[in-house]
Amino acid sequence: MTARYDAEALITFGAALFAGAGMPADRAEVAARLLVEADLMGHDTHGLNLAPGYLDALATGGMRPDGEPEVVSDRDAVLVWDGGYLSGVWLVWRALQTAFERVARTGTVSIAIRRSHHIACLAAFLPLATERGLMAIIASSDPARDGVAPFGSFEPLYTPDPIAVGYPTDGDPVLIDISASTTTLGMAERLEAAGERFPGKWLIDNQGRASDDPAVLASEPRGAIMPLGGLDRGHKGFGLGLMVEALTSGLGGYGRKDGADSWGASVFVQVLDPAAFGGREAFTAETGWLAAACRGAEVPPDRPPVRMPGDGALARKRAALSEGVVLYPTIMPALTTWAEKFDVNPPPPLA
Amino acid sequence: MTARYDAEALITFGAALFAGAGMPADRAEVAARLLVEADLMGHDTHGLNLAPGYLDALATGGMRPDGEPEVVSDRDAVLVWDGGYLSGVWLVWRALQTAFERVARTGTVSIAIRRSHHIACLAAFLPLATERGLMAIIASSDPARDGVAPFGSFEPLYTPDPIAVGYPTDGDPVLIDISASTTTLGMAERLEAAGERFPGKWLIDNQGRASDDPAVLASEPRGAIMPLGGLDRGHKGFGLGLMVEALTSGLGGYGRKDGADSWGASVFVQVLDPAAFGGREAFTAETGWLAAACRGAEVPPDRPPVRMPGDGALARKRAALSEGVVLYPTIMPALTTWAEKFDVNPPPPLA
Repeated sequence: MTARYDAEALITFGAALFAGAGMPADRAEVAARLLVEADLMGHDTHGLNLAPGYLDALATGGMRPDGEPEVVSDRDAVLVWDGGYLSGVWLVWRALQTAFERVARTGTVSIAIRRSHHIACLAAFLPLATERGLMAIIASSDPARDGVAPFGSFEPLYTPDPIAVGYPTDGDPVLIDISASTTTLGMAERLEAAGERFPGKWLIDNQGRASDDPAVLASEPRGAIMPLGGLDRGHKGFGLGLMVEALTSGLGGYGRKDGADSWGASVFVQVLDPAAFGGREAFTAETGWLAAACRGAEVPPDRPPVRMPGDGALARKRAALSEGVVLYPTIMPALTTWAEKFDVNPPPPLA
Repeated sequence: MTARYDAEALITFGAALFAGAGMPADRAEVAARLLVEADLMGHDTHGLNLAPGYLDALATGGMRPDGEPEVVSDRDAVLVWDGGYLSGVWLVWRALQTAFERVARTGTVSIAIRRSHHIACLAAFLPLATERGLMAIIASSDPARDGVAPFGSFEPLYTPDPIAVGYPTDGDPVLIDISASTTTLGMAERLEAAGERFPGKWLIDNQGRASDDPAVLASEPRGAIMPLGGLDRGHKGFGLGLMVEALTSGLGGYGRKDGADSWGASVFVQVLDPAAFGGREAFTAETGWLAAACRGAEVPPDRPPVRMPGDGALARKRAALSEGVVLYPTIMPALTTWAEKFDVNPPPPLA
C-alpha cells in the first residue's frame, strides 16, 4: 500500500533538514513549504524529490545557506539581484514579497535574478500572487545546463525554459506552468532510469529524426528535446524559449556567455496589478467568463470536460490535504540518510 | 512575370488611400509604412493585404479615422487606453512612442489597449524598439472572433492570440512573432479560398480528430484550429493563449464577456529597457552569444543552418528594398477600386 503523509508534517520535516544543512529556520520553512506545495499539486518531480539534491548542494557548497542577494539594480519597479547561489526557492519567494510591497504603487514590478540556485516548481509560487488578486509571470532558465536544440538542429544548447503565469478569476485561479520545449529534463531522467519511453516523439536524434527514446539524449553526438511544436511547428517553441532566455539571462546580465557551470537558474519574476490597469473587477469578470466558457466547451463523445490550467493541481491539492500526500516511491528513502545525519525524525505515514 | 514595387512608393500609395478614407496624413503614413514593413518582411497576409479591409472599415464606420484614445488609467509605467476602434496599427505605434518616452526613467512600460481596431503584423513593430536598444513584447487577441478551441475540445472559443517579442543582440535583432495556436485564421482563409490543405494536421474536427482540411472550420458544429502542441502537447499552447487573453482583454478590462462584435483587438504592449536591469552591454553580449551558438548548431546532413527568428524576415526585407516588393497577386487588384474612388495613382511596377 502506498504511504501517505500529512502535508504540515512533511513541511516540518523538510524545514528541519534544510535547517540542519545550515539554512536559517525561516528560510528553511519557506523552501520546504514550497516544495511540499509542488507535491500537493502533483508536480512530483519538482517537490521533495529535489530536496536530496538541494541538501547535497548545501553540503558541498553549490548552494549558499545564508546571506543576502546583492542588489545590482533597484529602479523601484525594476530590480536585478545577484543571488550568489542562495536557495532559489527562497529567492523567488523573497522577490515576490518585494513585488507585493511595491506593486500597488507601481502597477508592475519586474525582478531579474542572476546566479540563483534552482527554483523548483514554478506553479507552486503562483497562488501567492493570485490570492492577493495579482497576476504573476515567472520564467527561468539554467545557463549551466542544456537539453533542448534550436529548431532545425539536434544539438542541445539551452534548457526547457519554463514560464508560469498565474492570474485570478471570479472563481479558482488559473495556474499555467509550461515549458518552451515538448518535455522536461526531469521527465527524461525519470523515464531513462525506469527504462521507459515517452508517450510521443518529443525528442530529436542526431540524424534529425523524431524519437520517443530518452537514450538519444546520451548518444554521441547527443540528440535533444525538441522545442514545443516539434518537427513542423517547433519554430514557435524555439521563439518562446528565446524569449525566456532573454528575460532571464539577458535582463539578469549573466548566463551562458559567462560559462556558468554551477547548478542554478536565471530567473525573471513579474507581478502585474489589475487594479492599476483596467480594474480588478473587470479583470476577474473577463478571466472568469473565459474560464467558464472553456470548461463548458463541446468535447468529442466520451471525452472529459475541458480543464483549465491549475484545475487538476488544485483538485489534487484538495485531495492531498484531506487524505494525505503520496510521495513518489524514491523520495522518502533518499531523505532518510539526511534525516539520520541531522538527527531529524521522518514523519510517520498516516494510518 | 511577377510585378515588383518600390517600397516607398507603396507607402505613399497606401498613405494616400488611408488619407482618402479620412485618416489624418501623419497617421495614414504610419499605418501604411507598418503594413509595407510586413510585406518587406514577407508576412504577406498581414501587410497591404489588409488595406482593403481597413479601407472598408473606415468607409462603413468599423474603424474610426480620427480622434484620441481615451485614457482609462495612467500610472506612469502602466497605462490603459480605450482605443474606440481607431486604427490599431497607429494605436500600437503611438503606444510604443509613449513607452519610448518614459522607459529610460521607469525601466518598463506596460500599456493595455481595449477596443483597438486590428493591429496587423506584430513583428513589423519590433524594430522600432530593438533599434533603440530596447526589448518589446506585443500581444493581441480579437474578442469579437474565435477559431481556436481549448485543449480537449473542438469548439472554437478564442483567437490564435499572437505574441511578438523583439530584442537587440550585438548583431541583428531577434524578432519573434508566434501565435499560441498551430496556425492562423488568415492562413486558413487563404488555403480555403485556394482549395488547398495545410501541410500538417493542425486543425481539430468536430469528432476530435486531427485534420489538415480548412473545411472543418465551417462544418456544423464547427471544428477549430488547435492550440500549439496539438493533440498531445496542446495544453501548453492553451496556456500560452490564456496568458495572452489575460494580458490583453483581462488587463484592458474589456473583451469576450462584453459581447464585443466589431473587428478589432485587445492589445498588450510592454517595453523593457535592459539598461534598467543588468545593463545594455551585458544584455546584448548574452543574447548575441546565444544567437551565434544557435546559428552554429549542428544540423542533420544536407539541412540548412539554424535561422534565428527574424533572420528570414530581415533577409527578405534587404532583398525587397534592393529588388522591389513582390505583392501577393490578389492585393493590387483589390486596391485599384479604392485608388479610383480616391483619385490616387497606383505605383507603377518596377521595370
